[in-house]
Amino acid sequence: MSDITAARAALRQQAVELPSWAFGNSGTRFKVFAQPGVPRSPEEKIADAAQVHRFTGIAPKVALHIPWDRVDDYAKLAEYAGELGIEVGTVNANVFQDDDYRLGSVANPDPRVRRKALDHLLECVDVMDATGSRDLKLWFSDGTNYPGQDDIRARQDRLAEALEAVRDRLGDGQRMLLEYKLFEPAFYTTDVPDWGTAYAHCLKLGDKAQVVVDTGHHAPGTNIEFIVAFLLREGRLGGFDFNSRFYADDDLMVGAADPFQLFRIMHEVVCAGAHEPEAGVAFMLDQCHNIEPKIPGQIRSVMNAQEATAKALLVDAEALAAAQAAGDVLGANAVLMDAYDTDVRPLLAELRGEQGLEPDPMAAYAASGYAERIAAERVGGTQAGWGA
Amino acid sequence: MSDITAARAALRQQAVELPSWAFGNSGTRFKVFAQPGVPRSPEEKIADAAQVHRFTGIAPKVALHIPWDRVDDYAKLAEYAGELGIEVGTVNANVFQDDDYRLGSVANPDPRVRRKALDHLLECVDVMDATGSRDLKLWFSDGTNYPGQDDIRARQDRLAEALEAVRDRLGDGQRMLLEYKLFEPAFYTTDVPDWGTAYAHCLKLGDKAQVVVDTGHHAPGTNIEFIVAFLLREGRLGGFDFNSRFYADDDLMVGAADPFQLFRIMHEVVCAGAHEPEAGVAFMLDQCHNIEPKIPGQIRSVMNAQEATAKALLVDAEALAAAQAAGDVLGANAVLMDAYDTDVRPLLAELRGEQGLEPDPMAAYAASGYAERIAAERVGGTQAGWGA
Amino acid sequence: MSDITAARAALRQQAVELPSWAFGNSGTRFKVFAQPGVPRSPEEKIADAAQVHRFTGIAPKVALHIPWDRVDDYAKLAEYAGELGIEVGTVNANVFQDDDYRLGSVANPDPRVRRKALDHLLECVDVMDATGSRDLKLWFSDGTNYPGQDDIRARQDRLAEALEAVRDRLGDGQRMLLEYKLFEPAFYTTDVPDWGTAYAHCLKLGDKAQVVVDTGHHAPGTNIEFIVAFLLREGRLGGFDFNSRFYADDDLMVGAADPFQLFRIMHEVVCAGAHEPEAGVAFMLDQCHNIEPKIPGQIRSVMNAQEATAKALLVDAEALAAAQAAGDVLGANAVLMDAYDTDVRPLLAELRGEQGLEPDPMAAYAASGYAERIAAERVGGTQAGWGA
Amino acid sequence: MSDITAARAALRQQAVELPSWAFGNSGTRFKVFAQPGVPRSPEEKIADAAQVHRFTGIAPKVALHIPWDRVDDYAKLAEYAGELGIEVGTVNANVFQDDDYRLGSVANPDPRVRRKALDHLLECVDVMDATGSRDLKLWFSDGTNYPGQDDIRARQDRLAEALEAVRDRLGDGQRMLLEYKLFEPAFYTTDVPDWGTAYAHCLKLGDKAQVVVDTGHHAPGTNIEFIVAFLLREGRLGGFDFNSRFYADDDLMVGAADPFQLFRIMHEVVCAGAHEPEAGVAFMLDQCHNIEPKIPGQIRSVMNAQEATAKALLVDAEALAAAQAAGDVLGANAVLMDAYDTDVRPLLAELRGEQGLEPDPMAAYAASGYAERIAAERVGGTQAGWGA
Repeated sequence: MSDITAARAALRQQAVELPSWAFGNSGTRFKVFAQPGVPRSPEEKIADAAQVHRFTGIAPKVALHIPWDRVDDYAKLAEYAGELGIEVGTVNANVFQDDDYRLGSVANPDPRVRRKALDHLLECVDVMDATGSRDLKLWFSDGTNYPGQDDIRARQDRLAEALEAVRDRLGDGQRMLLEYKLFEPAFYTTDVPDWGTAYAHCLKLGDKAQVVVDTGHHAPGTNIEFIVAFLLREGRLGGFDFNSRFYADDDLMVGAADPFQLFRIMHEVVCAGAHEPEAGVAFMLDQCHNIEPKIPGQIRSVMNAQEATAKALLVDAEALAAAQAAGDVLGANAVLMDAYDTDVRPLLAELRGEQGLEPDPMAAYAASGYAERIAAERVGGTQAGWGA
Repeated sequence: MSDITAARAALRQQAVELPSWAFGNSGTRFKVFAQPGVPRSPEEKIADAAQVHRFTGIAPKVALHIPWDRVDDYAKLAEYAGELGIEVGTVNANVFQDDDYRLGSVANPDPRVRRKALDHLLECVDVMDATGSRDLKLWFSDGTNYPGQDDIRARQDRLAEALEAVRDRLGDGQRMLLEYKLFEPAFYTTDVPDWGTAYAHCLKLGDKAQVVVDTGHHAPGTNIEFIVAFLLREGRLGGFDFNSRFYADDDLMVGAADPFQLFRIMHEVVCAGAHEPEAGVAFMLDQCHNIEPKIPGQIRSVMNAQEATAKALLVDAEALAAAQAAGDVLGANAVLMDAYDTDVRPLLAELRGEQGLEPDPMAAYAASGYAERIAAERVGGTQAGWGA
Repeated sequence: MSDITAARAALRQQAVELPSWAFGNSGTRFKVFAQPGVPRSPEEKIADAAQVHRFTGIAPKVALHIPWDRVDDYAKLAEYAGELGIEVGTVNANVFQDDDYRLGSVANPDPRVRRKALDHLLECVDVMDATGSRDLKLWFSDGTNYPGQDDIRARQDRLAEALEAVRDRLGDGQRMLLEYKLFEPAFYTTDVPDWGTAYAHCLKLGDKAQVVVDTGHHAPGTNIEFIVAFLLREGRLGGFDFNSRFYADDDLMVGAADPFQLFRIMHEVVCAGAHEPEAGVAFMLDQCHNIEPKIPGQIRSVMNAQEATAKALLVDAEALAAAQAAGDVLGANAVLMDAYDTDVRPLLAELRGEQGLEPDPMAAYAASGYAERIAAERVGGTQAGWGA
Repeated sequence: MSDITAARAALRQQAVELPSWAFGNSGTRFKVFAQPGVPRSPEEKIADAAQVHRFTGIAPKVALHIPWDRVDDYAKLAEYAGELGIEVGTVNANVFQDDDYRLGSVANPDPRVRRKALDHLLECVDVMDATGSRDLKLWFSDGTNYPGQDDIRARQDRLAEALEAVRDRLGDGQRMLLEYKLFEPAFYTTDVPDWGTAYAHCLKLGDKAQVVVDTGHHAPGTNIEFIVAFLLREGRLGGFDFNSRFYADDDLMVGAADPFQLFRIMHEVVCAGAHEPEAGVAFMLDQCHNIEPKIPGQIRSVMNAQEATAKALLVDAEALAAAQAAGDVLGANAVLMDAYDTDVRPLLAELRGEQGLEPDPMAAYAASGYAERIAAERVGGTQAGWGA
């Protein structure tokens, strides 16, 4: 049987990292729908993130995206976060929103543009130094739209060169997390399209380079938990960008499209002991709340991740191993499904109570009046979004 | 053997319709890269479209998108097009770029929003009256992002009601073309996700309603030419939105990603005689030139469509039918491939010569100095794009 | 709140139909793994099906596949089923396993083969007459492997002709259910590849023709519950072939790959009242137990379908409608998820108790000794499989 | 401009390796259609392969599949091939067609089965020793069908152990080629599902281990030429299994489904100089001629591969590099398309003439009377197929 005491202990130390940009406006290429109360500054985003932690108790970090969260004094920003009870987490570099990056950033055929992109990456390490962040997350939109447009191999050479320069700049205790993505915004080739490419680069970069798995960045039919298990076996899984998708990189709330997949992913994480803080795996959200309110969208996402983790922790590992060893296909599957079919919401409500939190974070947030307050207060100025 | 005289005749009367928005800026949700010389008004878009026709000789129409191409006097706009040697073609309705449309347009749960959307559709018929356009193209971004968000069936009822109102407003000789799309911008459900849904609505709407096939709007693995053949057999194919894609709705130049697929589609069109003008099938481009120059991008696309059509016209229909009837799998395939493997560029260059055009439209445009001229002249103002 | 009394009542009258072929051997093109105790005759298959009903209480029918289940006296076979407490259900025609069908059955270019295929379909109606079956299920493997191999449109004409002949042969109270499938065994075109094609044919065939949805027969990313809702709105959903898949037509146990999808499908069914027997929707399994034991595989599948139905019945319809009408994206989603997250196993165990069944069908079957008995008794002879 | 002299020289030394099993019967899980004249022995398969070389001049090797091609004396079999003018090439191990392999071969939870599978792999190296083959091709059908069925990570450990044992057994000049495949016959996990997994294992195995790319083994939307370019950059591409697919692993004739993709792959090969024999890349076919005649199916496939290679060799590398360096998206794409749009059939016919071959291999084979002869002679006995 599963060890409920161990499960409770593990859940008590679970931490999900929030993305600052989830609180700003986002949308599709067709339209960005504005919402009332959206932050106009990095500080307001951090304040909103703190609300998510306040009601869930397991979201103590917020990731930054540079230049969207550019401020004069990053140490002060980190201090501000601390005052609100959370920390600044991962720093995300953005080398895709300047006209210079039309044909790519670090893999651009033009050396001037490559230099500019690399300078931005290095600047992000400066930010990490100031905020005390451990991780630099690197996602490159680099790629091509048309066959022949550029040399696939030469682009790899350029990419490798930039990655090495970043690696050399990292200080002790700092890591670089390399993200892969099948497509979008590039449509023909993407320079880091799959985990294999990210893994191969990380191997050469050494111990400070790790792969990050965004759950929305795969081809249809890809078994993501296999990738997770494989990277954990290799010691190369740096973290997750959690979200969910029905078709492409939909960036919906994690667990909303396929909660069973999320559970299977967390099962592999738990099997490898990678849910424990010392494993160094960052559990980040990377989502867009295009049509739903943003703070509740984040709260719900954190809860979905928590429920999947709780179910994974309830798997009876001994019974599972026995059935697997016996080649009992249905029996082994049943052990896994028993945990998945369990309603873990009462357990999580109880754990919240132990921490002095309300049992229902969604209801508690709604009752807090925060949404009404920011809608009233945040008038004027420019709402934060992907473009600012 | 194929009838080269008939093929030449068919190619001489081929017409591809251009989208006004292909000349404006476009991009992905990550970034819209600006380009020099981009039009700032509907008139400038039409002028650019006229250049495509000037060099290819087979692009005599330009489609409008309302409100992107909103002007005070549409009859005058059509007149202006005429002065440049082209015509205003299809009118495209846009009910996805207002904050009111966050949860949909004609299928929105809010009756006020539905009314607003319908009013826009009816306004587009007014535009058609003024421009003398035959076709109203309807694409709805309507759908939902999360399971449970709205009632799938109720949304169909609302959609059907709006379509009927549009149908009732259409005059003699006017048609409505209903477009379907698998996903984007909605991620969970789309209210017209596939040809079956569009077809079912058109059947009920009667003779004025036809399905339009956008070549980028299908699930992976969908056989588009089957759909084309089926709709032609049913008399329900109103037209195409041509473009190409590797993954999702990439909106790349038609024929750039899978030229063989484009040929197979045109083969079905030719088999059904639907390439002839009297068949009433509109051959439209619907593309985004995110990183490549726009006028050359359109010229190349028109040429790609023309080459695929030429190859389809060269299929030896008699030999194909004989091999098919005999169950000669390899023989029948070989007849089709013989046409596809033919280099039709010399034939098309010759046809251009007969029409008094330069044999190489790309080179001729490049030599014309038009690109340099508009880059120099179109300074100041706001470049047209999806948002304006 | 959801109406638990109504839910219980609905669950008490739920019926899932079993496929006789699920008890025989099956596999992939690479290998069919034999299992001990596999039936050697239609009678033994029916006996196994009766076991599934014995322990679940909701599987009172077994579908036949002709010629796999060919017997001299079908009335007697039906009688035998009755003695075991179940009924013969749907009759499945098989026109894909004769060397004559290399290039198709009813759409074959050779009229002799088409006639042979049609004769088989008509023979299946004879079987229905003898067994008292209501439904004839038609799945055609017809299609082509290579572009040009055959005329897409001519094949539709041939298909339509055969379907009309079958329709004309059906007696009162008999129906034909037309199944669609994206691909396999044909790889380039399939003659009934999607619901739209099946629907269009059914419309022309009239009231006796209905579409059947096999949950494994779609392109990646297809929203199956949308199709279900649409067909129910049109009054054209005849039934389901339930199974589950990760990639293609994997024919795994229903609910094993994506239990949330199965729940969403059943939610649409319940919304339309189509779970009620009088709605005439057949809930059939169509699965292959390639590596797991077959009777337990069927029991588990029936339970998975039952659990999904129970959850769908627990959705608070009133709260859902209110949230949808209010445009409350997260609220409406939460209502749906509340039902999904509920552990319905205790409720179902209780209902079983009321019916005099053991609460855990899997354990009860394992304890019954039936598996050991058939393994011992069914020695010699030829095990049933797809080829026999 | 492209160097036509170099292109001709490269084409003269091109070699495509044929699969012995392509001459035997094959099919889908639904049906294997028998064809007249199909070989009944490895010798007859080799004789058929020799016909393909006789008419194309570029297919001098035939790969074996053990145990399908099991003989008492492999050296004698190789000698027999030599007498017919061809060589025995790659040896393919088969560890998926024994009842013991129901839950996998080298990754099976049962150590006895793992040992049996490994013994077979080692036996295949014995065959290589006897035939003088360079390459052992390893494809594992290993995987699971249901979540929880087995431990993903433990299976990797078992796989790695077997691969090491094989590596240790390889002699000088012998290599192991590790194949990956997304799915089928396993549906939930596959133990070597993608190039990244194969690559990671090869890295650890050392210089004798290389990845083999089967063009039909990827998820929808995967950019195969990117993988080819990446593996070539890493020095880890051992060879290709060529075929084509529309949906899954359709195993159709290479170039039949997407000839442009095949060209793009060959373009990457040519860019890296990997078409030259000394590069050590094996260009193998791996196909199933389910409905078309087998020898002509192979001839056509070899020609398709040859045409794609010819086009790739005609790319103007200098112009391409210049356009790429200049960021000229349309110009670079046009250089590539110019080569693709060229009709290379006259050039290849001419090259055949220089070699003393008929210009049209398909017609020449048809005229040879070989098909009629084997249909008449090969009567009785058991036709070779996947199962024998």
